[in-house]
Amino acid sequence: MKKIEHIGIAVKNLKTSNALFSKLFGEPAYKIEAVESEGVNTSFFKVGTNKIELLEATTADSPISKFIEKKGEGIHHIAFEVDDIEAEVRRLTLEGFIVLNEKPKKGADNKLVVFLHPKTTNGVLIELCQEIILKE
Amino acid sequence: MKKIEHIGIAVKNLKTSNALFSKLFGEPAYKIEAVESEGVNTSFFKVGTNKIELLEATTADSPISKFIEKKGEGIHHIAFEVDDIEAEVRRLTLEGFIVLNEKPKKGADNKLVVFLHPKTTNGVLIELCQEIILKE
Repeated sequence: MKKIEHIGIAVKNLKTSNALFSKLFGEPAYKIEAVESEGVNTSFFKVGTNKIELLEATTADSPISKFIEKKGEGIHHIAFEVDDIEAEVRRLTLEGFIVLNEKPKKGADNKLVVFLHPKTTNGVLIELCQEIILKE
Repeated sequence: MKKIEHIGIAVKNLKTSNALFSKLFGEPAYKIEAVESEGVNTSFFKVGTNKIELLEATTADSPISKFIEKKGEGIHHIAFEVDDIEAEVRRLTLEGFIVLNEKPKKGADNKLVVFLHPKTTNGVLIELCQEIILKE
């Protein structure tokens, strides 16, 4: 794992939270993006070489709706950048970690993503992500 | 804010979790440190230019004991590195954020730290931290 790519924060209202985090970081979100397959609207802030992703649910059965119902607003996941997501999934599976999706899926911000089950990682939802590079 | 300095994760048993996170990152913790004033034992892992801090309570009234009682093991706080912690506290206070300690205090890993109240930051416990530089 190369670095913390981003931290995902579950929020009730993206517009209100964008204003709040703009004040916190001293600059606005650089990207707003809907990820329909996950039922979320997202925004991204840069903090040095890392990012913060805010996530607002767009459907009642979105994982973010369920998270906020259960735990309230707050930190939802940590995403680590990897070079070869399939190799990393193989390594971690051999180490005993459980993945939520074995086949990488398309996430926000042009990434292939795999989530690890929090029950094997001390309650922490961990995302592995790899930049999608378009071949000519 | 310059970058994510570290993410703090509350764990029940530091020894067990050190073994788990060593497998996750493919290398062991580079530092184990007790912070008596906070009632915690900590360990640190490097992930590129970022760090992960594991926190285990050493007293029943440690903030980490209370966190685990209420929410279970999991992500406890995000720490952002700043150059001038007092200037950053002044700026954020003017923006309406509430700090838990106005005067920076000595934290783990040779840092001065200030925490922001989660009720003003969408439920996220945010730590500002500045490296302590010893003057000759």
